[in-house]
Amino acid sequence: MNQQSHERAPALHADGSLRHLLTLEGLPRALLERLLERAQHYSRPLGTPPARSQALQGITVATLFTEPSTRTRVSFELAAQRLGADVASIEMQLSSRLKGESMLDTIRTLESLHVDVFVLRDAQTDVPDLVARNVAAHVSVLSGGAGNYAHPTQGLLDTLTILQHKGRIAGLSIAIVGDVRHSRVARSAWHAFATLGATDIRLVAPPALMPNEQEFGGCARFHRLEDGIAGCDVVMMLRIQKERMTEAAIPGAAEYFAEWGLTPQRLAAARPDAIVMHPQPMNRGIEIASQVADGPQSVIRDQVRNGVAVRMAVLEAVIAGRSSPALSTGKDAADWRQRGPRP
Amino acid sequence: MNQQSHERAPALHADGSLRHLLTLEGLPRALLERLLERAQHYSRPLGTPPARSQALQGITVATLFTEPSTRTRVSFELAAQRLGADVASIEMQLSSRLKGESMLDTIRTLESLHVDVFVLRDAQTDVPDLVARNVAAHVSVLSGGAGNYAHPTQGLLDTLTILQHKGRIAGLSIAIVGDVRHSRVARSAWHAFATLGATDIRLVAPPALMPNEQEFGGCARFHRLEDGIAGCDVVMMLRIQKERMTEAAIPGAAEYFAEWGLTPQRLAAARPDAIVMHPQPMNRGIEIASQVADGPQSVIRDQVRNGVAVRMAVLEAVIAGRSSPALSTGKDAADWRQRGPRP
Amino acid sequence: MNQQSHERAPALHADGSLRHLLTLEGLPRALLERLLERAQHYSRPLGTPPARSQALQGITVATLFTEPSTRTRVSFELAAQRLGADVASIEMQLSSRLKGESMLDTIRTLESLHVDVFVLRDAQTDVPDLVARNVAAHVSVLSGGAGNYAHPTQGLLDTLTILQHKGRIAGLSIAIVGDVRHSRVARSAWHAFATLGATDIRLVAPPALMPNEQEFGGCARFHRLEDGIAGCDVVMMLRIQKERMTEAAIPGAAEYFAEWGLTPQRLAAARPDAIVMHPQPMNRGIEIASQVADGPQSVIRDQVRNGVAVRMAVLEAVIAGRSSPALSTGKDAADWRQRGPRP
Repeated sequence: MNQQSHERAPALHADGSLRHLLTLEGLPRALLERLLERAQHYSRPLGTPPARSQALQGITVATLFTEPSTRTRVSFELAAQRLGADVASIEMQLSSRLKGESMLDTIRTLESLHVDVFVLRDAQTDVPDLVARNVAAHVSVLSGGAGNYAHPTQGLLDTLTILQHKGRIAGLSIAIVGDVRHSRVARSAWHAFATLGATDIRLVAPPALMPNEQEFGGCARFHRLEDGIAGCDVVMMLRIQKERMTEAAIPGAAEYFAEWGLTPQRLAAARPDAIVMHPQPMNRGIEIASQVADGPQSVIRDQVRNGVAVRMAVLEAVIAGRSSPALSTGKDAADWRQRGPRP
Repeated sequence: MNQQSHERAPALHADGSLRHLLTLEGLPRALLERLLERAQHYSRPLGTPPARSQALQGITVATLFTEPSTRTRVSFELAAQRLGADVASIEMQLSSRLKGESMLDTIRTLESLHVDVFVLRDAQTDVPDLVARNVAAHVSVLSGGAGNYAHPTQGLLDTLTILQHKGRIAGLSIAIVGDVRHSRVARSAWHAFATLGATDIRLVAPPALMPNEQEFGGCARFHRLEDGIAGCDVVMMLRIQKERMTEAAIPGAAEYFAEWGLTPQRLAAARPDAIVMHPQPMNRGIEIASQVADGPQSVIRDQVRNGVAVRMAVLEAVIAGRSSPALSTGKDAADWRQRGPRP
Repeated sequence: MNQQSHERAPALHADGSLRHLLTLEGLPRALLERLLERAQHYSRPLGTPPARSQALQGITVATLFTEPSTRTRVSFELAAQRLGADVASIEMQLSSRLKGESMLDTIRTLESLHVDVFVLRDAQTDVPDLVARNVAAHVSVLSGGAGNYAHPTQGLLDTLTILQHKGRIAGLSIAIVGDVRHSRVARSAWHAFATLGATDIRLVAPPALMPNEQEFGGCARFHRLEDGIAGCDVVMMLRIQKERMTEAAIPGAAEYFAEWGLTPQRLAAARPDAIVMHPQPMNRGIEIASQVADGPQSVIRDQVRNGVAVRMAVLEAVIAGRSSPALSTGKDAADWRQRGPRP
């Protein structure tokens, strides 16, 4: 495998419709807005029945997670079920030495079982892209989170949640707080915000957890929580891992909370109508106080709820995209036939 | 969390319909009888197709087991599927220190994915109740077994099995044999039997495995197997764990069997038409001889079969209950709206 | 349990229809051909929707795997789903001492949950047969691979793949290469090939990995790869386990590949239109070179694709078989009623 020097798998079909979703970076604004619109169409208040359709009738979706994530996995699987798809759920450990190769053989096998869409989650940045470059022309690959690189459906659900509460992205002040350096959540959210015209995105982190200067171009950077969230509309908290505290020379959870924990007092620095977000799972009492997590400004549960709607919209889009006539007679399809066993 | 001094989650809606099923204790007799009647409606002989309906069309049921139990999990999941529900199946380990908190965040997350019914199984007595006190008004919680405290659907299926074979509960002599002290199965069965008017319930156990005197009020207690089951109509065997033998100062499996194993010879002390029950999994040759487990008086397989029927009846009841007009305009629903992110 | 001296569970109903599929050995040629014909009916090119029917509407299929195998499990589960069945998926570890007994109690339990078809996978040769001898008359057992003994659906899909590419079995030269001695894949394929009139089957293996002389009657044996595949139409590669190399006194993977790895150079000894098969997962660079595995003569992906079609055909056959009038009034059904708890 040549993982260093390759072209990324193209996200779009020739006709501009969505084929893979591996990152939000570079996704055309019109397509992003269309996905958010469809997600809003599928969004329902809690306590009312979830949206359903038969848009994926006859389609098979496989979730293949090498990192456990109940929330993301169940969210994708319910989205697929509620669209009428068949679902195959696979959790597997792959030895790291053979990972790429074993992953590709597994994918080819599942592809041969008529799997149409793969949802992949992996600790390694490149795995979904590697898979996307190797699947047949009628197959789509969706990232369910890959390394530090991207978590595109999380970025979409974060954006949808802000839109539902603030009505727009452009013109908002949005603070992303915590371990930005290692966060795929931060990267995917930032890609969406930037595409939708945000101009005041602030990274708020201890120096050691701040991303390299080349990344997150145009974002202001703050090393003190109160400064970073002062007057902002949206506070996006990130999860902190214990090993990252050590990197940041913070002795432990109590010290992290003392300096970086979002308490009601600190939140008062933001606008009074600021909303608070967190991708979960939360470390209560470490990066966020329970009074904030469960308080009136928290929209954390809306984020989760929007997760199913966003995933329904993405699944619908990739299946709709592949049936376009441009695709079915295209070059890729011919390639595929040539790759078959009988030339 | 305040796990010591709280009101239990109320099992019923204001209109008396079933909301949660965490224990059979205190459940009104009419409701218990209605559940058993519906379970009988869903009960089918083996070799004929299982009952089906679309009563749960559009409903999502999640099983969340922190203790493995293939039988109970599959039984609930097939019950939900056969009623037309979507099913999300989750097995997870939670670190004990953070258990309550992690469990609640997980539950809130799943609730936000439009899960309508949770089936919980946990080694800790209080977990399902903790969850039930914290879910939204439209959500129901069913216990799939919690600590020593309760296993209510097991109690229902045991009762249904007796009714199918004996036609009544009141007036029967029922012996519960083995490790009664640590048994959620014994407690839930006893609650149902007592509600339905049983007056001759006998606890048969070594002294160390007998429950405290305050519990199981009105039950006779026996310390010798033959005495306890003499002339009885029903022999309910319980599973013995190895560590409990030690507590009871019984050196090992062979010694336990010698004194407490239900053999054909010992069973002869019961009525000739007595039925033998076991909640499974069985320790053959320890608490029960294979000749008895597989013999003509055994109704163990009927118990399992009734498990699906009982779980269908309970799922149907909680979903029917929540759509009653009393609920949808009630106080709880208003509470829920207030808990939403946008007041 | 008496595992030594028993009759094998009969594969067929009294009317000759299929009841269990535990091995292909002894299966009547007409039945084998009918299964292959139906599998071909269910076979679809990749990139087109998979076949579907409602032939298993109302039927419950349980997969019970004590050995992990994503490919075989997902293949059976998708086959069942695409025929409209409910599916219960169970992975379990059974302690070896109690295996037979625990397995039977588990099976009886699942049978009582109205499971109609069991798909079993186990490292022990006898487990599926043990189960088949003990299930109720309306229940079918399918092997998903058992010890070294048999992997009958793999044998069917291998045969179907050859038929699709060569149009016949009789008259072909087929080389089975590698660890034939320990291979259930080799045994099941050979049973099918022999039944369909193959006369030139060659076993190609190091002496230590060659089966006993009593087995594989009529097959030619070769100890050098090039000799064994010379002029043949089909090269069936087998997976080699590391511990088997040691048995064969081969120091390691590199040495195995040097002597036994199928490279393009070596493959040139076969007919130019020879096809190459592998049951997967592959050890690339050990028993097979990637250039061959992914090359123009490889039909490995067709094998996987045919796996779903073959499993649909088998599921359909056993469910169709049990509804035949001969069965529903037959001796077995009466036996079953007598085994019920109420005589």
